[in-house]
Amino acid sequence: MRLAVVGAGGRMGRMLIRAVAEAEGCTLSGVVAREGSPALGQDAGALAGLPPLGVAVSDDPLTVFAATDGVLDFTTPAATTFFAELAAQARIVHVVGTTGLADADIAKLIAAAHHARIVRSGNMSLGVNLLAGLVRKVAAALDQDFDIEIVEMHHRMKVDAPSGTALLLGEAAAEGRGVSLAETRVSTRDGHTGARRPGDIGFATLRGGTVVGDHSVTFAGPGERITISHHAEDRAIFARGAVRAALWAHDKPPGLYGMADVLGL
Amino acid sequence: MRLAVVGAGGRMGRMLIRAVAEAEGCTLSGVVAREGSPALGQDAGALAGLPPLGVAVSDDPLTVFAATDGVLDFTTPAATTFFAELAAQARIVHVVGTTGLADADIAKLIAAAHHARIVRSGNMSLGVNLLAGLVRKVAAALDQDFDIEIVEMHHRMKVDAPSGTALLLGEAAAEGRGVSLAETRVSTRDGHTGARRPGDIGFATLRGGTVVGDHSVTFAGPGERITISHHAEDRAIFARGAVRAALWAHDKPPGLYGMADVLGL
Amino acid sequence: MRLAVVGAGGRMGRMLIRAVAEAEGCTLSGVVAREGSPALGQDAGALAGLPPLGVAVSDDPLTVFAATDGVLDFTTPAATTFFAELAAQARIVHVVGTTGLADADIAKLIAAAHHARIVRSGNMSLGVNLLAGLVRKVAAALDQDFDIEIVEMHHRMKVDAPSGTALLLGEAAAEGRGVSLAETRVSTRDGHTGARRPGDIGFATLRGGTVVGDHSVTFAGPGERITISHHAEDRAIFARGAVRAALWAHDKPPGLYGMADVLGL
Amino acid sequence: MRLAVVGAGGRMGRMLIRAVAEAEGCTLSGVVAREGSPALGQDAGALAGLPPLGVAVSDDPLTVFAATDGVLDFTTPAATTFFAELAAQARIVHVVGTTGLADADIAKLIAAAHHARIVRSGNMSLGVNLLAGLVRKVAAALDQDFDIEIVEMHHRMKVDAPSGTALLLGEAAAEGRGVSLAETRVSTRDGHTGARRPGDIGFATLRGGTVVGDHSVTFAGPGERITISHHAEDRAIFARGAVRAALWAHDKPPGLYGMADVLGL
Repeated sequence: MRLAVVGAGGRMGRMLIRAVAEAEGCTLSGVVAREGSPALGQDAGALAGLPPLGVAVSDDPLTVFAATDGVLDFTTPAATTFFAELAAQARIVHVVGTTGLADADIAKLIAAAHHARIVRSGNMSLGVNLLAGLVRKVAAALDQDFDIEIVEMHHRMKVDAPSGTALLLGEAAAEGRGVSLAETRVSTRDGHTGARRPGDIGFATLRGGTVVGDHSVTFAGPGERITISHHAEDRAIFARGAVRAALWAHDKPPGLYGMADVLGL
Repeated sequence: MRLAVVGAGGRMGRMLIRAVAEAEGCTLSGVVAREGSPALGQDAGALAGLPPLGVAVSDDPLTVFAATDGVLDFTTPAATTFFAELAAQARIVHVVGTTGLADADIAKLIAAAHHARIVRSGNMSLGVNLLAGLVRKVAAALDQDFDIEIVEMHHRMKVDAPSGTALLLGEAAAEGRGVSLAETRVSTRDGHTGARRPGDIGFATLRGGTVVGDHSVTFAGPGERITISHHAEDRAIFARGAVRAALWAHDKPPGLYGMADVLGL
Repeated sequence: MRLAVVGAGGRMGRMLIRAVAEAEGCTLSGVVAREGSPALGQDAGALAGLPPLGVAVSDDPLTVFAATDGVLDFTTPAATTFFAELAAQARIVHVVGTTGLADADIAKLIAAAHHARIVRSGNMSLGVNLLAGLVRKVAAALDQDFDIEIVEMHHRMKVDAPSGTALLLGEAAAEGRGVSLAETRVSTRDGHTGARRPGDIGFATLRGGTVVGDHSVTFAGPGERITISHHAEDRAIFARGAVRAALWAHDKPPGLYGMADVLGL
Repeated sequence: MRLAVVGAGGRMGRMLIRAVAEAEGCTLSGVVAREGSPALGQDAGALAGLPPLGVAVSDDPLTVFAATDGVLDFTTPAATTFFAELAAQARIVHVVGTTGLADADIAKLIAAAHHARIVRSGNMSLGVNLLAGLVRKVAAALDQDFDIEIVEMHHRMKVDAPSGTALLLGEAAAEGRGVSLAETRVSTRDGHTGARRPGDIGFATLRGGTVVGDHSVTFAGPGERITISHHAEDRAIFARGAVRAALWAHDKPPGLYGMADVLGL
């Protein structure tokens, strides 16, 4: 499968180039950076800290989309909705790891998905998506005798809490249990809190060092606990997840998919 | 639902009495100890460290089985196969937590299950059975890029390794992956081991202190890890699991069930 | 060493009786409950769920203090200050696990410690006190490149957060680093928090199930993390810590000691 | 402080160059690779994936040692003993992370340390060395009621078990307890093991994925557990530890030091 990367000027773009170069079953067919990017014209391999790959960075997505089977895209909402239209015209695979999409952006993806095969997720790692599925199942299997607590740790520079992924896991837990996360979410505990309210879903946030991202969900019941956790060692897992999504979508009909579809969960 | 306990003279029997006394939706209808047991004639409550329950320990299972809807049994293979016949005659529920059953014993349970509703598991805790289901699913979803490692810790008096529950989790992993545990199991690593063989399922055993039982299964892939773990605080969870199994089986047709059926996994 | 227990009517008193009965190097010499307690006159063994110990519960502390080498006391501030005076008169060991002591109460203990050997701690478990010493040392050895985060989990009925023990560990960290906990403590993170402030000491609180008490302190630096954790399985550890403190203090000069002295840390 | 790197042709050499370039309080004064290395003549920055540093890789250690205050050395025993002589002649700092030194090699280091300030450790990370000190203290503070268990996990390519660092932690535990590791070490448990022998120090080894290195030491006692663990995210911590050791040794008298000296533990 031929794969192209957009947003090649950024850190995630370079990771995607490496992921395509290292994966089996696909070749790098093109690389796009925005106009004016210092990456333009460079060899994609040099850009990604690899030996030369024979693919020069281009600022012409039309040409690149015309000669590929799929595009990996961790850019911005505005760029992503534009690329989705191109992917629809080219009837190719479009893997979207872009975050911060508004409802209007998602509507455009849905429209494009009549012709493109779009896979979109706020977290492209296999592990986290697998975790969300497990959390949903366990929350559905257990009743309120089991209290749900979600803990995450990220590096000291992270500016928001809880992490988007922790909230994604919280949503999975709430869905499994058939409740609203907004009504059950407890994100702070300090001072005299009183006893835990039955059915609450608790969040705890740790920050420190250079932690890429740890998440765990504990179901604490009478006399026993189940904990499901994910440890990210390296941001490259998001790039590899995107490649896997593209390979999976290659022979699928047009539509908007999530990582749960890719994983068969 | 009326529930009776057999094997009341042992530690697990007393835990079962407490679990029935504390559960909703059931009442203790009878308690059986073996002939000659010092528990005979005592009040079941006194035996279990509770206020009197008005049920005296009996050595006559026939009478007890005739006046109950279900029997909880963590005894020995010989006793269990005998009780299964009685349960079949009485057409009641028989929950079997007995371990060490031979194939011939299981054949007798299968025969009895034409008339009795039998639920049998080597580990009656909800958490461990849930874990086994999760492990099977994750092992099926991930390929050999993810190495499977199982760690368990138990108290210093435990005489075998790995624990039966660790092996149960290993079987679940092997099933999920479609391989034989016997061919992939690695239980020791010491000295020059060479690199890990792809597809192996590793076991590591810790012993110390008074640990009731911790198990975890890690799927270690490129750049990320998923860990699914169970922590038992208290042996009472096995008794509560047995009660839950009995309540679930009350309105089921005759047959031989496992805890996965009880949990709907 | 002869040891007596006061406050025998409560749950902790019964645990202390068991701890003395099971420890080597000491015998139970007396047991005191308050006037009017239903425990009065009972055998201490029966009270504690043990075979008879030949010691009847008394409401006369004077007689009990006159015939013992040490007293174990997890009662109330008012009772404890009274018992400290008796211990001073008898020139014996007084182990104080009572919580909620005011400064005036502590002043009375200091006065009594001119003649009694008093060991006092808000958490008598060996493990937690050892942990506090380790945290102090690590915090002193590492600079602000290592962010300190403290996580605790307790059962769903606990009404305050963070736990007293988590704060004790935070104080140890702050002391080691030579800062004020009040100025560096961060107990909540929710929403847009901004990047972590250098030098902060973070707390995260989990609540659920029947967890007796888990604490961990993480030092997260560039590329590596150290975590020091304590897991309490059973409240009996507090009683055993008290016995150990008494045995240690037996041959010490009068004075007010802490568990750090007992452990030689 | 001026620092030079030897063994620049290897992966660890490149990490050392980066660590010097990024640290405060030191500058890169020279880089040595062995004769015939393809790295010779290259700029050290280019070699390490950094912008140019203006230091060319040389095959002449004499010149490099004459114009530096310290040398970072993760090479081979033969090279290291040769470099130690040069460091003695130049009366500079020599940081040795080389592994596999024989007794005869160490004797040469001791001789060189009459004039050089040599810091040597089998694991230069701050965290692991701190951990070893903690383990020694805890093992000394606790008696055989607490069972010691050491678990480590490394990537799937690692060929030996337990890891050298796990054994280093085991030695620390044995020293703290005043026993011989050889006589107490248990590295495998499989099948019918019998109960745990009092005083044993157990090792468990996990292998999988791309784990850089996790180690934990658990002290499991009656009713409670203390666990001290280290998680390495990145091999760069070993290089940074070497730089820290060099900066520490700058104003010290000649001698052979360990990382415990550097950390003040």
